Amino acid sequence: MGIAEIAAAAKSVSIRLAAVETGAKNNALAEIATALKQQSEKIVSANKEDLAAAERDNLSAPLLKRLKFDESKIADVCAGIDSLIKLEDPVGQTLTATELDDRLELYKVSCPIGVIGVVFESRPDALVQISTLCLKSGNAVLLKGGSEAQHTNKILADVITQASEKAGIPKGWLGLMETRAEVTEMLKMDEYIDLLVPRGSNEFVRYIMNNTNIAVLGHSDGICHVYIAGDADVDMAVSIAVDSKCQYVAVCNAAETMLVDEKIADTFLPKAKTALEEKGVELRGCERTRAIIDVSPATEKDWGTEYLDLILSVKVAGGVDEAIEHINRYGSGHTDAIVTSDKKKATKFMDLVDSANVFWNCSTRFSDGFRYGLGAEVGISTNKIHARGPVGLEGLLIYKWKLLGTGQIVADYSSSGEKNFTHKKLNKDCKL
Amino acid sequence: MGIAEIAAAAKSVSIRLAAVETGAKNNALAEIATALKQQSEKIVSANKEDLAAAERDNLSAPLLKRLKFDESKIADVCAGIDSLIKLEDPVGQTLTATELDDRLELYKVSCPIGVIGVVFESRPDALVQISTLCLKSGNAVLLKGGSEAQHTNKILADVITQASEKAGIPKGWLGLMETRAEVTEMLKMDEYIDLLVPRGSNEFVRYIMNNTNIAVLGHSDGICHVYIAGDADVDMAVSIAVDSKCQYVAVCNAAETMLVDEKIADTFLPKAKTALEEKGVELRGCERTRAIIDVSPATEKDWGTEYLDLILSVKVAGGVDEAIEHINRYGSGHTDAIVTSDKKKATKFMDLVDSANVFWNCSTRFSDGFRYGLGAEVGISTNKIHARGPVGLEGLLIYKWKLLGTGQIVADYSSSGEKNFTHKKLNKDCKL
Repeated sequence: MGIAEIAAAAKSVSIRLAAVETGAKNNALAEIATALKQQSEKIVSANKEDLAAAERDNLSAPLLKRLKFDESKIADVCAGIDSLIKLEDPVGQTLTATELDDRLELYKVSCPIGVIGVVFESRPDALVQISTLCLKSGNAVLLKGGSEAQHTNKILADVITQASEKAGIPKGWLGLMETRAEVTEMLKMDEYIDLLVPRGSNEFVRYIMNNTNIAVLGHSDGICHVYIAGDADVDMAVSIAVDSKCQYVAVCNAAETMLVDEKIADTFLPKAKTALEEKGVELRGCERTRAIIDVSPATEKDWGTEYLDLILSVKVAGGVDEAIEHINRYGSGHTDAIVTSDKKKATKFMDLVDSANVFWNCSTRFSDGFRYGLGAEVGISTNKIHARGPVGLEGLLIYKWKLLGTGQIVADYSSSGEKNFTHKKLNKDCKL
Repeated sequence: MGIAEIAAAAKSVSIRLAAVETGAKNNALAEIATALKQQSEKIVSANKEDLAAAERDNLSAPLLKRLKFDESKIADVCAGIDSLIKLEDPVGQTLTATELDDRLELYKVSCPIGVIGVVFESRPDALVQISTLCLKSGNAVLLKGGSEAQHTNKILADVITQASEKAGIPKGWLGLMETRAEVTEMLKMDEYIDLLVPRGSNEFVRYIMNNTNIAVLGHSDGICHVYIAGDADVDMAVSIAVDSKCQYVAVCNAAETMLVDEKIADTFLPKAKTALEEKGVELRGCERTRAIIDVSPATEKDWGTEYLDLILSVKVAGGVDEAIEHINRYGSGHTDAIVTSDKKKATKFMDLVDSANVFWNCSTRFSDGFRYGLGAEVGISTNKIHARGPVGLEGLLIYKWKLLGTGQIVADYSSSGEKNFTHKKLNKDCKL
């Protein structure tokens, strides 16, 4: 089957999947977990093929680590499936209920989006996580993993497909793409695909965003800031700056620029320099920063760069307004933090910084679905519509309006008609 | 100022607008209503210029009617502004609140999307409605109305701008475009514009959707269906079919195709034919329809056509499954209704028809923000993300995550750290 047929089939199946009952979906999830465990030997051996090829191709150590899918990773994804089973079914929830008139009732009910296209790199666990999230939320899914993981992904997709079909889920809800060309094809299929979730490198996500008309949930850049206000607790500020930059440098919510209020720069910067350099961080400063501490110069380009590395650009700012302006100009709308003891200043910062996550007196590294307590994470979005910031299962859902009448027609409610709307809020728990 | 400057200014102002307090926004809305009334003479006289030009250009009577903006229309839009003032401020609502740990609290708070681009045709009242909706929801707005209404739109935009600035709203929140070329320009400005809301003809909306990377809230087609199940109450079915088709033919939620179960076709079709033809409707039927009633033949093209006219295509269907399949294949995901006395069949229809509005035993014409009791209506959307169906003020909103800490860093919560997340639900009413 070509990708067009796979996508068309997914669209058609997605309709039926939307109405599959909670019990049937949970049974299928349990079957998938069982099958993954039962077939772990085959999965691990397929993964070894991928690892051997990756070693021959001299893949870097971090990439090899992400590619590895052993018994312990299988146990992890199965534990994930178990907690997914326990989650309430997000489909079919009544969001609002209104009586429009006697025996004419309107329900806004959550439902799946339809067909989700997910493109991810290297980590085979992402295939299991995303496909089971889609199944729980009643969405069909088209998946494309990194070519380094092709053998692992193939067997995982086969195991998941067979186990779910055995449990009665309609065939074709999961489609696996195996080539780059198929991804390029997929980007054009706005007829069949309702949402794309690209996971992976920034260049990759940006490529997806720039080459499709389909809605994309994700973020390309994570240019995050920490602003140290003039009244910040210096020790707290140093600790937050170090954690935001160093706790894990290669991720989107790591800080790339530190803004320091001129009132505190003299005391804060030398301490921050010592602490950051101890962690191996290279500082690049503006002129005013360099007048206080001896660091290499930052250029205009630095303010807009996501290093994903042990580098931090530093700028002295005239106050919270200048900091806000800098962040809204150079940031990527991802995560930005202020360190201050002044609640008013913090509120202004959080109101005016136009980012998905705005933090007061804590590390930028907290912006993450697990830390937010969202359960399963679909991704982090810097979109301004649908879903923003860390996105849980609800990012894969939309709603439809169900209107239940007893023969009503609009003519009776028009200016010449005799009926009037009551528009009375109903209890959301009332049964459809 | 060119459109690029107007859009950049709107983006910059939108940041400040997001933090304007409820009282200030309501004051500005009141000022706008006052100014519109005070300057009604100037407005009506500008509108007369437009009307005179439109008559010279032989605009059709319905278009002339929509273009007309007299004292009574001014009173209407001012009444709309009054009810908008009374609405709760949708910005700054806490949607969820979670304690992540002691004195580390996460709030999901509603906020404006940013800059909304609205393109509408002919009706000057749309300019007032949309701009005041944007102001209430804290969004900047770029507006382009129909060129037929250019004098009216210009003075309305001037009055609104001046009144709102007088009330302290930052200058530049409302930008008026006056040429088609500016709209074409605007479609490229994904850097400044976060959402487009096109209102107007289907061709026009489809043009917008096909020519921009910016998210679009709206619908191009409204190919709505009424399916008469085998167990339908025949009189109710006739009444609903007539209302769905005829109550107002030129709108998106009017029915274009009627599907009739083979079990009821013999009794229903003759009665429906009489009632519909009495209203001047031309019926176009499939072979099986034409074997029962004498109507012109429907071709494949009819199933995918939005007539917006007194024409209805009719097809005999083998059952609810065939009806669902037909609707999902040929429909536009707008509004589809089933007439049946069987709740199970109705539920199946509403679950499996992949449309924004799925109705049981009532007219398709009910799908409308006013009838749904949403208050102000932004538009009707057939999107599968963000907002679907009739969209009220909430369609102009998104949220941001505010995390309020007291010095917490992620290292303390990592595997080697000593702290654990509590993830405790907080009362949404607790103050930030």
